[in-house]
Amino acid sequence: MSKHFLDKAMARLAHDAPELQPGHVWLAGAGPGDPGLLTLDVLSALAQADALVHDALVSDKVVAVAAEAEKFFVGKRGGRLSIPQGDINALLVRLAKEGRKVVRLKGGHPLVFARGGEEALALAAAQVPFRVLPGVTSAFGGLASAGIPATMRGINGAVILATGFAADSDDRPDWAALARTGQPIVIYMGLTHMAATVADLMKGGLAADTPAAFVENATLPEERTVVATLGTLAEAAHREKVVSPSLIVVGHIVSLREKFGR
Amino acid sequence: MSKHFLDKAMARLAHDAPELQPGHVWLAGAGPGDPGLLTLDVLSALAQADALVHDALVSDKVVAVAAEAEKFFVGKRGGRLSIPQGDINALLVRLAKEGRKVVRLKGGHPLVFARGGEEALALAAAQVPFRVLPGVTSAFGGLASAGIPATMRGINGAVILATGFAADSDDRPDWAALARTGQPIVIYMGLTHMAATVADLMKGGLAADTPAAFVENATLPEERTVVATLGTLAEAAHREKVVSPSLIVVGHIVSLREKFGR
Repeated sequence: MSKHFLDKAMARLAHDAPELQPGHVWLAGAGPGDPGLLTLDVLSALAQADALVHDALVSDKVVAVAAEAEKFFVGKRGGRLSIPQGDINALLVRLAKEGRKVVRLKGGHPLVFARGGEEALALAAAQVPFRVLPGVTSAFGGLASAGIPATMRGINGAVILATGFAADSDDRPDWAALARTGQPIVIYMGLTHMAATVADLMKGGLAADTPAAFVENATLPEERTVVATLGTLAEAAHREKVVSPSLIVVGHIVSLREKFGR
Repeated sequence: MSKHFLDKAMARLAHDAPELQPGHVWLAGAGPGDPGLLTLDVLSALAQADALVHDALVSDKVVAVAAEAEKFFVGKRGGRLSIPQGDINALLVRLAKEGRKVVRLKGGHPLVFARGGEEALALAAAQVPFRVLPGVTSAFGGLASAGIPATMRGINGAVILATGFAADSDDRPDWAALARTGQPIVIYMGLTHMAATVADLMKGGLAADTPAAFVENATLPEERTVVATLGTLAEAAHREKVVSPSLIVVGHIVSLREKFGR
């Protein structure tokens, strides 16, 4: 039934999806997890690929669409990259130079905390033609699914996305400065360094009773939202055994969830 | 040819799109403009709708997919809302109470600077069942299309989205505080109040030579990127006759565009 609607809609849409050429790489975003959040261009890319390089955050259902592609799993195993980023870059270049039609598929959006930018630079340096196919950003897809609006008139005129897992000090956001903006903050990969992040946000003036939440496995059937406050995030994570992948959202937008009827 | 790939991919995807029930409203995001950035769930929603309430930012091609729906245009005409937001909320409630299958389609993502949150609250208050279907956020879809990564290791661990057109002082972001974070800022609807915004960002310490750009009509065939610096944005907008819709992006991520081969 639902397939029927999709087929009908597809037949009516005057859109020519781009064609993936041999020797090209498409950096594609699969969105936060729910296959219904795939874009048409990404779906079409999967059916054209003969080499698919993918992450752990991409579901088996989605990988299965690339039925004719050789699969290269390069995601995390046990919390660590199975192969270093430099090797992933080199793999993409090698596959392209072999004349393969390469899709590099990541969760979320490839240029939002997903290291797609580094891969793009490596491809450009090797003169491999590439293209970026955006996906629904995990932060905004996940918040919507949890019933939390990213922006609301009268509450916030800006929203901040930040990574909680910056590898070196150059990247580490100045959390106190982010806090002083008064704007809500959505944190990717925030569990590992949560205690330090929360402490810095409080140093920046965010009150301990600022609403906050975890959105675990956003948009997947096992999605779970755990509501807390900035001051009780650590306790809530421990009590509720919150696991990765989990977004952390801090700010008054979290309180709107109740009004949304959740 | 490209349709063929999409059909093949669709046949392989084990995904049951949700079914739109009479009396329900789906708040759906069409993405930044390119129909290839539509999600499967939004596409399927269009084929199920019998009432479509849409904005100016949604392309005719996309509206045409909702062939069986009565169309209600509620977007801007000549820079102003054709009908007030309160009337749009009331229209959605009325259509739902009439037992229609309602899709409310917006550009971008409905809960990111699109007033979908207000509509959701109005629906919840009227006990109308609703659902949010995320779209690709205009900021991240648009930046990717312009060859500008939203995040890059070694450059930024956060990214800020802000509206340049906050209607009242409660909403207006503290631009100087945003500037002091040192993080890149993507500004929606920034043209009208650009001079004041730029002045405030500089007060916050952002240097006049900070890279900046306009991305006009992002992801559409007429997309155009105009690169400048924070200090020359106004001059560049005037010289190049930059028009809405246009994103403004400020920060060192803009300089990566050249390395991306643009």
